[in-house]
Amino acid sequence: MGDFDPKIPASYQDCEFLMLGNTAPAIQSLVLDRLNNRPKFVMLDTMNLWIDIANDDLKSLLKRVDCLTINDEEARMLSGDYSLRRAAKTIMAMGPKTLIIKKGEHGALLFQNDDVFFCPALPLEEVFDPTGAGDTFAGGFISYLASTNDLSFENMKRAIIHGSAMASFCVEKFGTERIQDLTQEEISARVQEFVKLASFQMI
Amino acid sequence: MGDFDPKIPASYQDCEFLMLGNTAPAIQSLVLDRLNNRPKFVMLDTMNLWIDIANDDLKSLLKRVDCLTINDEEARMLSGDYSLRRAAKTIMAMGPKTLIIKKGEHGALLFQNDDVFFCPALPLEEVFDPTGAGDTFAGGFISYLASTNDLSFENMKRAIIHGSAMASFCVEKFGTERIQDLTQEEISARVQEFVKLASFQMI
Repeated sequence: MGDFDPKIPASYQDCEFLMLGNTAPAIQSLVLDRLNNRPKFVMLDTMNLWIDIANDDLKSLLKRVDCLTINDEEARMLSGDYSLRRAAKTIMAMGPKTLIIKKGEHGALLFQNDDVFFCPALPLEEVFDPTGAGDTFAGGFISYLASTNDLSFENMKRAIIHGSAMASFCVEKFGTERIQDLTQEEISARVQEFVKLASFQMI
Repeated sequence: MGDFDPKIPASYQDCEFLMLGNTAPAIQSLVLDRLNNRPKFVMLDTMNLWIDIANDDLKSLLKRVDCLTINDEEARMLSGDYSLRRAAKTIMAMGPKTLIIKKGEHGALLFQNDDVFFCPALPLEEVFDPTGAGDTFAGGFISYLASTNDLSFENMKRAIIHGSAMASFCVEKFGTERIQDLTQEEISARVQEFVKLASFQMI
């Protein structure tokens, strides 16, 4: 895990919603260890590298988090199963009660117990730079949960739509350019595009 | 186009909903020529081969159909545009007012004018044999339109969900095994799985 030694600023100690960004699982565990109180909701990001070279550390950490967010290839790698439906069951049995499988331009799947929700990605005219889309998605998701303080599955669906909307802005310009000056009106309008994209009524 | 000479049985002459299955565009055109009356709704399937070797024939035929169904790679090939949103505009300008872009396990997009609807694919535990999924999807789509006789965009959304539900059965067994004895109850239950998969309510 190298020499990086995470210091938790005092102002972060009482966080209720924690997003552990992608780094070595041992460092992510150390962050969790150093919080005085266990947050209400802990979300974890990881990647193929750690599944490969730090599998034991990752498996230990998975027992301590509420939600894991990974992409489809990583879900297959971690579970050893090609079927995302079966992969999700295997991964949730490792610890996290909620699992998000990201599929990039193909949207994302939200799993919890036997429930599954599919969140589409907005078909965009132009994708300028996909860098940071996954982090923006995770940040949009957990910030929605934190601002609403509601961990029900129905609210997690809203949170994943929110995260996807934020990610759709991220890719439209370079780096953080598009998201740093976003207004609430722009975000609400984008969320409505997702509502329109996914809504139908069977009769 | 070879020697195949399509004969239209008399009982097919008055069809109102026509699905032109994938074959050489010249043969598909001939089928349309040989109908005494132009059907109310004509849907076309094609593939990369015809986009490549029979592009002129295909472009002529596209002017005569209401709806085209192709996969994402073919949409990019036909339009010369990687962005599916822009590709859709380009292809609809070639003739069909409605365009379905199939993305296999990632669902399908329905385009009409400036409207777009995303239909998810059901995450399945097991995909036994994907052969015929596209044809089953198209058949499920147009048969829903024919049985409801409603060509509104809202009804096309229901039709694409119906087509996706039928395709999800198709891949569960070999060939037509799974779909030949399906009951209406099984189909309705599967459609409800799509409703559950895609439904959310923003507040």
